[in-house]
Amino acid sequence: MAKKLVPPQATIRRLSVYLRYLSSLENDGVKVISSADLATRLALNPAQVRKDLAYFGEFGKRGVGYSVKKLRDHIIKILGLQQVRSVAIIGAGGRLGRALALYTGFEKRNFKVKALFDIDNSVIGTTLAPEAGAVLHLDELPKIVKERNIEILILTIPAEAIKSVYDYVMLSGVKAVLNFAPFKLISTEDVVVHNVDLTTELESLSYHLRLKESGIDISPEENGIDDTGS
Amino acid sequence: MAKKLVPPQATIRRLSVYLRYLSSLENDGVKVISSADLATRLALNPAQVRKDLAYFGEFGKRGVGYSVKKLRDHIIKILGLQQVRSVAIIGAGGRLGRALALYTGFEKRNFKVKALFDIDNSVIGTTLAPEAGAVLHLDELPKIVKERNIEILILTIPAEAIKSVYDYVMLSGVKAVLNFAPFKLISTEDVVVHNVDLTTELESLSYHLRLKESGIDISPEENGIDDTGS
Repeated sequence: MAKKLVPPQATIRRLSVYLRYLSSLENDGVKVISSADLATRLALNPAQVRKDLAYFGEFGKRGVGYSVKKLRDHIIKILGLQQVRSVAIIGAGGRLGRALALYTGFEKRNFKVKALFDIDNSVIGTTLAPEAGAVLHLDELPKIVKERNIEILILTIPAEAIKSVYDYVMLSGVKAVLNFAPFKLISTEDVVVHNVDLTTELESLSYHLRLKESGIDISPEENGIDDTGS
Repeated sequence: MAKKLVPPQATIRRLSVYLRYLSSLENDGVKVISSADLATRLALNPAQVRKDLAYFGEFGKRGVGYSVKKLRDHIIKILGLQQVRSVAIIGAGGRLGRALALYTGFEKRNFKVKALFDIDNSVIGTTLAPEAGAVLHLDELPKIVKERNIEILILTIPAEAIKSVYDYVMLSGVKAVLNFAPFKLISTEDVVVHNVDLTTELESLSYHLRLKESGIDISPEENGIDDTGS
């Protein structure tokens, strides 16, 4: 079934959410969870939870639920998280770049920032995050990608920098890009790009404020808050 | 039609993307754009673009396209962006909080950071972003929300801080929360919450790396990269 191979992006995002919750359950010694409980705790529809997990094979016993450990291990495999993924940040001298370079949350979940790049000479050579080494000039990207086995680039550059950065990124040999810059980068056959626009998040909240101002009241479920893809 | 009232969250997100592109077209003096052009430029399906816009009434003339200015103005109204929306950051002393307090992208798109909060005494009273005033203790949140007409709270707090912060946030009088903390906050009838987990974005890229490693090749469209909700 082709469907099994290509779950929607929203399902992949929810796998992360399930994983986080399952890890905390495992820490608490919980052995089994039903899709209904998983759904309630995460404010999702139980049918949605079952549908998400069904993309990846059959888990869980009817009437019993899922083994927390097995389901967690399986999601880790699906998401390719058994191994550490190496990350580099481009635009590391900027505020968001610095914040992400020092963000401890990535490493907790098996992503390691292994190199920092910028094109600003006042930043190059300085140390922003000890484990990532000194900030390097973007020229060195292809070499470092190979040497340090970088798999994911995080872009935190201003819009006007894209022209000087694009070719470096697309030809660097990495296969995945997380783009925080305020323009939409498009995936190619070789490079998967996810775009995160922080202002888009605020605009989407503004939409809900506008609805409330207009007296249109819709329930949180119907808001589609979690991008259930429905 | 109930459907007109409740477009999926993915549609709302795309409205932001359309808006950004339409603004740049308007700056370039472009008057009219077809849904096909809009779709090509943004790597979306033309049918998807037409469907998104149809939620909000009829735009565009068959065979001619959309008026850039009219469509842009209409999306601004839909998203409630005619007015400045006031924002406060909780956890402003942390790295991400500081980065967002100084992020100039928000103001360009009509969101103004008007207050900063923390519970760490070493940060309270200091000035991180001049226009947002000195960092305040979280105790002052309800008062300041009223005085400065704060509509959106941005949470950049560590997971363990949620217990001491949750009631303040939910009872503060704001109607919208953008949560960057690594746990899922659930919307209530009074407060819409969007959760942004930066690690989830990396995990979802890791999934695509894993697919490539397994030799499973799926086209970027089919990846559902942009959460088209399909």
